[in-house]
Amino acid sequence: MLFSDLKISTSKNFSSDGDCKNADLLFRGGFVEKVSSGVFAFLPLGIIVLRKIENIIRQEMDQAGCKEILMPALIPRQNLQKTGRDNVDVIFWPKENTALGFSHEEIVVPLAQNLIKSFRDLPAAFFQIQTKFRQEKRSKSGLLRGQEFIMKDAYSFHSDQKSLEDFYQKMAGAYFRIFEKCGLNVKKIQSGGGDFSEKISHEFSVICEVGEDEIIFCRKCDWGQNSEIFKNQTACPVCGGEISKQKAIEVGNIFDLGQKYSRDFGFELLDQNEKKFFPTVGCYGIGITRVLGTIVEIFNDEFGIVWPKSVAPFLATLVCIGDKNLDLAQELSEKFSEKILFDDRKISPGKKFADADLIGCPLRIVLSEKLSAQNLAEIKFRSSGKIEKVKITEIPKFLETEN
Amino acid sequence: MLFSDLKISTSKNFSSDGDCKNADLLFRGGFVEKVSSGVFAFLPLGIIVLRKIENIIRQEMDQAGCKEILMPALIPRQNLQKTGRDNVDVIFWPKENTALGFSHEEIVVPLAQNLIKSFRDLPAAFFQIQTKFRQEKRSKSGLLRGQEFIMKDAYSFHSDQKSLEDFYQKMAGAYFRIFEKCGLNVKKIQSGGGDFSEKISHEFSVICEVGEDEIIFCRKCDWGQNSEIFKNQTACPVCGGEISKQKAIEVGNIFDLGQKYSRDFGFELLDQNEKKFFPTVGCYGIGITRVLGTIVEIFNDEFGIVWPKSVAPFLATLVCIGDKNLDLAQELSEKFSEKILFDDRKISPGKKFADADLIGCPLRIVLSEKLSAQNLAEIKFRSSGKIEKVKITEIPKFLETEN
Repeated sequence: MLFSDLKISTSKNFSSDGDCKNADLLFRGGFVEKVSSGVFAFLPLGIIVLRKIENIIRQEMDQAGCKEILMPALIPRQNLQKTGRDNVDVIFWPKENTALGFSHEEIVVPLAQNLIKSFRDLPAAFFQIQTKFRQEKRSKSGLLRGQEFIMKDAYSFHSDQKSLEDFYQKMAGAYFRIFEKCGLNVKKIQSGGGDFSEKISHEFSVICEVGEDEIIFCRKCDWGQNSEIFKNQTACPVCGGEISKQKAIEVGNIFDLGQKYSRDFGFELLDQNEKKFFPTVGCYGIGITRVLGTIVEIFNDEFGIVWPKSVAPFLATLVCIGDKNLDLAQELSEKFSEKILFDDRKISPGKKFADADLIGCPLRIVLSEKLSAQNLAEIKFRSSGKIEKVKITEIPKFLETEN
Repeated sequence: MLFSDLKISTSKNFSSDGDCKNADLLFRGGFVEKVSSGVFAFLPLGIIVLRKIENIIRQEMDQAGCKEILMPALIPRQNLQKTGRDNVDVIFWPKENTALGFSHEEIVVPLAQNLIKSFRDLPAAFFQIQTKFRQEKRSKSGLLRGQEFIMKDAYSFHSDQKSLEDFYQKMAGAYFRIFEKCGLNVKKIQSGGGDFSEKISHEFSVICEVGEDEIIFCRKCDWGQNSEIFKNQTACPVCGGEISKQKAIEVGNIFDLGQKYSRDFGFELLDQNEKKFFPTVGCYGIGITRVLGTIVEIFNDEFGIVWPKSVAPFLATLVCIGDKNLDLAQELSEKFSEKILFDDRKISPGKKFADADLIGCPLRIVLSEKLSAQNLAEIKFRSSGKIEKVKITEIPKFLETEN
């Protein structure tokens, strides 16, 4: 792909998001534009990264047996009244009796009620990748907290608690794989429930100084809790290990919603003994745009973003010094249009190097007249800064194997 | 794919959309659910069709050189004030100073202004596939007129009128190909301009009795106009041929917006002689959910939907009579999971046949014990009703060639 084709416009200026690193770097690298507080537009480079994250998620949801649907953003007030959530203060009300969806339990439960007519249809699970809206007084964390953001939300329906718990574990496994594929090191932290009064829930959190959450976790085992539910203890209640407190970003969450929502909508089925029951419901969210912002918060240095390979917009930025290798550069760029971003701008190599670092593709390939006289090209690894020389003829092989 | 996996729930009952054929058939076939007036949820079967239409459009937009972006639904009032469109009566206002996007000129023009710094960057074109919102007093046409709907909108920027006109023609060509691939026979009809006062625009319309538009067109040449701009004439102004008046559905439109929006936002560039100019802007829309609704309005019969192959959820529905061929059916369904929808429900063959007709895949394959004794299967073509017998061993070849 050509730099000029994507109309990438990098910037030396910081965005207006103050000291918010993800918004600054994504803006300066030409990935997003801020439209208003907590509202962003995704530019061609940003779209590529967004789609890669979405595809990682979609693949795992398919594997887990969730079927993709798409629910509307406009939600009737009466649906929210049934669950008592019409007073949630983050809701936008474009009309008196119509809310903008901040979550979709109130749509998916009556929908499942229409689709699922027998206990034999259970378990059933649906997911969507869709835009959510939440009024936020302060939206100063770039993509970490938006007024409009893209979310994957999934909902599962079960005939009993055991079935929900099995699926809950399956989804937790899918979540670990999703975040790992995105390069994120997450901790699964209990965020609610665990006593008799409340159903259990977990969040998947990435330790990060700018996070709004505070998590407590064991340094030895995998125990962890959100500080909001944490009861003062000095050691891990599971293994007695040392516990630690850190700021974290919540990138995903999973909830056992019990029968609340199926009761609210009168969603009843007959079991195999013809006895009525309310299906048990699970809910599973991932903030997709937040994941994108989190990746940038974690993977950056003084020069710009350092994308994990799996979500990088391209595998390599290609810079050509002098005109002699332009044809070769063009040819590589066409042959590997999804892997190579060829900086075809008429500016100095120094500026191109700076932008390659800012945009943050894993590799930077340089073709220079001096090196090509020896049939060589230079490859710089963005994360380590290490530079290697490779034979020009071996670049295609190099690109094919670096996946 | 298994019927039970997709949780398809067909219905004999009509939806609540009265005599609106597209909403009724899509609801009864298990493609969509109506959430409220003009607001729909897409179920797993509906998502498959939606994605096929989106991919046809995306491919042609890529070919035409449009780069994909994603703009927000939340639009600041001040942007709409700059163009004088803050009084448009279909706008939802979730907050006093925030509108829900009904179109995106007010976002894309300042965005282009940030990305495009030189006349050398022109022409440039961007598109998005995104959800739009328009308040509608009456939304009784199913997917033809929604309060929330999915649109592809593209915007192009040019240094002069000639460049815009070239691109306008290119996009018109792309539109013809898109609609043809979707099985729709469209007419390109002048919908505005043509005199000195107003810029030109065209709509792409499908003749259909339930359409809200009225178009006048020549029966001999390709001349046509929307009845709103038509000046009473008895013959075609181009070739003198007979003219005809018909109801039609507008599925796409293209506009020469001139310099209005670049002037409104003070988007100025220097030309090669260092003289200032306002880029000329073009705008190109396709109502994606409306295209889906239109396809259903056009392609149906008394038994259900008759999908064109290109957008059909599956190539074939597979019905197995008796248990003898269940393994074979399962095997075919797994091998051709994107082409075969295997009706694995425990209901009568008659009901499965009725649902196969209702859902409307191009082929229906029947495996029966009687036929399989002769190594044969039955294939029914949904559109013609024609039935053929094929050797069971030849089904895979048949599915691979039927594309």
